[in-house]
Amino acid sequence: MSASRFDPNFTQNVINAMGPKTSPRMREVMTSLITHLHDFAREVELTVDEWTEGVQLLNWAGQMSNEKRNEGQLVCDVVGLESLVDEITYKKASEAANLATQSAILGPFFRHDHPVREKGESISFNTPSDGVPVYMYGQVLDSVTKMPLANATIDVWEASTNGLYEQQDKDQVDCNLRGKFVTDKNGEYAFYCLRPTPYPIPYDGPAGKLLQLLDRHPYRPAHIHLIVLIEGYRPITTQIFDKDSNYLDDDSVFAVKDSLVVEFVPRKGDPQAKLELRYDILMAPIDKSE
Amino acid sequence: MSASRFDPNFTQNVINAMGPKTSPRMREVMTSLITHLHDFAREVELTVDEWTEGVQLLNWAGQMSNEKRNEGQLVCDVVGLESLVDEITYKKASEAANLATQSAILGPFFRHDHPVREKGESISFNTPSDGVPVYMYGQVLDSVTKMPLANATIDVWEASTNGLYEQQDKDQVDCNLRGKFVTDKNGEYAFYCLRPTPYPIPYDGPAGKLLQLLDRHPYRPAHIHLIVLIEGYRPITTQIFDKDSNYLDDDSVFAVKDSLVVEFVPRKGDPQAKLELRYDILMAPIDKSE
Repeated sequence: MSASRFDPNFTQNVINAMGPKTSPRMREVMTSLITHLHDFAREVELTVDEWTEGVQLLNWAGQMSNEKRNEGQLVCDVVGLESLVDEITYKKASEAANLATQSAILGPFFRHDHPVREKGESISFNTPSDGVPVYMYGQVLDSVTKMPLANATIDVWEASTNGLYEQQDKDQVDCNLRGKFVTDKNGEYAFYCLRPTPYPIPYDGPAGKLLQLLDRHPYRPAHIHLIVLIEGYRPITTQIFDKDSNYLDDDSVFAVKDSLVVEFVPRKGDPQAKLELRYDILMAPIDKSE
Repeated sequence: MSASRFDPNFTQNVINAMGPKTSPRMREVMTSLITHLHDFAREVELTVDEWTEGVQLLNWAGQMSNEKRNEGQLVCDVVGLESLVDEITYKKASEAANLATQSAILGPFFRHDHPVREKGESISFNTPSDGVPVYMYGQVLDSVTKMPLANATIDVWEASTNGLYEQQDKDQVDCNLRGKFVTDKNGEYAFYCLRPTPYPIPYDGPAGKLLQLLDRHPYRPAHIHLIVLIEGYRPITTQIFDKDSNYLDDDSVFAVKDSLVVEFVPRKGDPQAKLELRYDILMAPIDKSE
């Protein structure tokens, strides 16, 4: 600790300023955050000019953020923070319950208004010439009993082969490569999508600036986003990664986990898709006593 | 360290992602920042929901910031970060040079376009009925030789008695309580201003939200902001505090330092002001060898 050169009471004074009505959790979180922020500043002897640049970068992130884009989140992703809190949250949940499908970060391109589509429909409405259609299907299961779960909803979204999600790309129709499916009485879901391809995260804002300063590439390995929900079970937010993709070892947002890497295999006798992916999803029941 | 429950390699992987072209200082700063952010998240087992609230707060700060307001800075001020980097920067400078006037934080209300005013002019163009005019004067001196410094510029700004800076208040004329003065051949400056009064920092944004969550008041002790510049000397950004003010011991942004507390004394025979303040400013010469 390099605190000694500087006022040794400063950090404790800031912490002590918290009033008695601060919630215990807020107090715990802010005590640790203030301590680590101050230790960081002292450790590197952060200057006013450097701090000012940091503030400008964060303000810029807020200014670029809107309903369709979350640049503050993306800045966190670049320094691994979303992936870390995802790991922490998953670990806490899986210690309490049985082993469910591993989680992964939400990412900044989720929309709350995915349209509901019928089992077996396609989510690709502007299939590009280099797009490879895939039939994705599977079951949603109870992680303890392995019984199929009917009426689970699966939110799915992916980028097109140009690396853009539909809200980033005026040439894609609204909600292209995005949809919500409901499992049938056998817990089964199915849809057509595109084999995902690697893409760079948006490079025109503070997250891109940070990557530049850190001499890092902006690419993510090919992946499909999923959120699976059913009453009485822990929600799952995850991503599945194509085992043949580049960047599995150096994802720009550090989200890859081994258990989420999947293999697309040839599909026969289906004019709509040359590849298929069976992917079952294990949901952990919520313990009533929690 | 509570790292053991979680992937022990994660933080190092994020740090290792920095490429060879990262500048040495950037590498030093980001290695420490990433380490402390991750340690913080693990220490309190930060959840995805809590992190999401933090991102929303930071995005909100950026969205509220503009030419006249810097809410990202204000959020930092509330957790003591600006005051700490100010201390660090001042300490580094004063170790290299001679003891100059102590610095204090810039705060979010500085404007780059202060108008130049004549020595002896007033900066108060909308003096409120409860405003107490003050004649403030003094010399700018070399901290080593104590010789007066001509042609130093002094930027000054303060809030009115309603607690608002002119850019926050449509009832004040542009650049009210704000101006730039130049020292004469004797290094002297002088102007009329108002005795400062305590005020709350803006409470309508994320900084106010944070103060609420921390059960803290938003008040700052009465102060006047100064920036003093002259070629060949280290710039000084500081604030002076009224010794009779409330909140000297619990400034909401932690900026008070003992050496910056001043006393306003009665002034005789001047119909324009009942109080006066003599305040000399010591400027540290820049060492040519630095």
